Amino acid sequence: MSINQIRGSQSIIFREAPYIVSAASVVGAKESHGPLGKLFDMCGEDDLFGANTWEEAESTMQKEACVLAIGKARVKAEEIRYLFGGDLLRQGIATSMGVEALQIPMFGLYGACSTSGEALALSAMSAAAGYGNYMLAVTSSHFGSAEKEFRFPLGYASQRPLSAHWTVTGSGAFLVKAADENPEQEADDEADGEGDAGENDTGVSRMSHVRIAGVTVGKIVDYGLKDSQNMGACMAPAAMDTIVRNFLDMDRTEEDYDRIITGDLGYVGQSILFDLVRGKGYDIRKKHLDCGMTIFDRETQDTHAGGSGCGCAAVTLASFVLPKLESGEWKRVLFVPTGALMSTVSYNEGASVPGIAHGIVLEHR
Amino acid sequence: MSINQIRGSQSIIFREAPYIVSAASVVGAKESHGPLGKLFDMCGEDDLFGANTWEEAESTMQKEACVLAIGKARVKAEEIRYLFGGDLLRQGIATSMGVEALQIPMFGLYGACSTSGEALALSAMSAAAGYGNYMLAVTSSHFGSAEKEFRFPLGYASQRPLSAHWTVTGSGAFLVKAADENPEQEADDEADGEGDAGENDTGVSRMSHVRIAGVTVGKIVDYGLKDSQNMGACMAPAAMDTIVRNFLDMDRTEEDYDRIITGDLGYVGQSILFDLVRGKGYDIRKKHLDCGMTIFDRETQDTHAGGSGCGCAAVTLASFVLPKLESGEWKRVLFVPTGALMSTVSYNEGASVPGIAHGIVLEHR
Repeated sequence: MSINQIRGSQSIIFREAPYIVSAASVVGAKESHGPLGKLFDMCGEDDLFGANTWEEAESTMQKEACVLAIGKARVKAEEIRYLFGGDLLRQGIATSMGVEALQIPMFGLYGACSTSGEALALSAMSAAAGYGNYMLAVTSSHFGSAEKEFRFPLGYASQRPLSAHWTVTGSGAFLVKAADENPEQEADDEADGEGDAGENDTGVSRMSHVRIAGVTVGKIVDYGLKDSQNMGACMAPAAMDTIVRNFLDMDRTEEDYDRIITGDLGYVGQSILFDLVRGKGYDIRKKHLDCGMTIFDRETQDTHAGGSGCGCAAVTLASFVLPKLESGEWKRVLFVPTGALMSTVSYNEGASVPGIAHGIVLEHR
Repeated sequence: MSINQIRGSQSIIFREAPYIVSAASVVGAKESHGPLGKLFDMCGEDDLFGANTWEEAESTMQKEACVLAIGKARVKAEEIRYLFGGDLLRQGIATSMGVEALQIPMFGLYGACSTSGEALALSAMSAAAGYGNYMLAVTSSHFGSAEKEFRFPLGYASQRPLSAHWTVTGSGAFLVKAADENPEQEADDEADGEGDAGENDTGVSRMSHVRIAGVTVGKIVDYGLKDSQNMGACMAPAAMDTIVRNFLDMDRTEEDYDRIITGDLGYVGQSILFDLVRGKGYDIRKKHLDCGMTIFDRETQDTHAGGSGCGCAAVTLASFVLPKLESGEWKRVLFVPTGALMSTVSYNEGASVPGIAHGIVLEHR
């Protein structure tokens, strides 16, 4: 009865791969001054986005990202069947308050910084199964709300260890469309000429060449690390596990991908990932890119280990990765957002910080 | 291309409806002394389940519920394709720590007390789409960890308003199986005679007659209420919205269901639900049952408005509802877990408490 291929123990290859027809990124001031600054759709000046609290600001970013993604594809919110969204805050409140106004039936998710992968996986699985024509995936994080949630009030000016990450202020939204129509033709009809996603224009920038070809759903991987200020080390084993599982399940190696892009391992996590992957007989060094290392400039925007947060991988995907897939510069990318599973309570009780990572196979077609 | 029916704006009817082949419930001491006490699979004596903290205790319950559900169906953890789980704690830590040992690829969810509906919906959607043979849905809540998370330290002995709920200490797990094999035959082969789920025996209690026929995915419904000590009132509008949407999407009325079972509206929420539903032209009073009102005895176990929590609807479904569906006493049930979307931060910042409810159509076949 299956219309899709189950691969190995954790993966699916979609027979009719859904498209990402549009994506949008909304970021804060620091992100707008980084290497990807000109690629984002919307940049806030003061990180408050007109709201009174960091939490409301994060919700506003989510809502704006959703509205932008929907608008780019020129669909109406009512046409979107289900929304899959999440964030880092307790009880996912940024998402609940952010997407409420859209009135799209929704599934709230929590996968720490891997949530954008989780949301894209479930959106693609639902679209490919025929549960609706359009699905919306959205995630966010905010430096202010995350510091308040996980660390110390900003006013304390606590010193951060060099292994610590800087939570990205940003939200990325992705409109996933089932493959039963011909989106290329549609897009050609609506846009002038070829896809122009990522060019930050105000017109239609509907994509027509980016497919979610498959997914590798991650397991919780726990090496027993307990340092919540070294998330890269906590998440690297999960990233390795999902990448190697993707290779095995889909009978591939690093040679089959133009890029293997992790979420927010940062400088510390990347070196651990390289070692762990080499231990399994693969060498991904030439193919690897980490969103947490890409979004900030290491020299001029010292963030220590790099960027992190649900928004980090999401806005980097929306602004930087998808346009390269749309243009065909990259033909196939393995996108692997990584999450560290902990809370202040679990940390204070001495629990370890396990990781999880979900793999999304993105292809130019 | 769809193998399933999209119905109305929010619902799906599965052409090949997946089965719930087993379920398990693990609860604390207070719950074991309630009206459903004898129906639960495992009852803790001190609510700690051998752990040192409430959070670890909750994780232990989740793990035990999963192991029990898997064991009842005599499958191995490796046969389960994906796990969908969640709880009430910040960053869903009870789930992360609880299911880690099972090493099943997992999707973390957050839908407050509606999470059991969300997990069952996604499990059924994934199984019906052919993404794997077995899916596992699990949720939990714990009185001690929830009071710590949302309210006051228990030692304060704060007085609770009459509209407040009592968070259920419990975890329910459900093994969902795709319909491509004949589970009735399988169950007959393995068990002695007919299904004996809910009889609390130690042998095989694999069910073979309970199907997830369809789902109605909920929207966030916000009537602007801000009283987190009156969750019933906050969630009743969402319950109404999902129930009425289910009727409209599936062209049904209350007459088409033997029972319409909400999660944890309690005594206050139920009366509001009746009024709201009547305003839409339906009268569900004779068909309605609320898990929060069923799990505790009103006279002898004063919980004020009733039970609540992700575990409330889950353990009531596992212990009380599913056996009646399995035996055929009930032919069709609309199971509607309800969630209140808030956190201590959103509450303190003056945000409202919107609700969400997911509808699961369960049928005896």
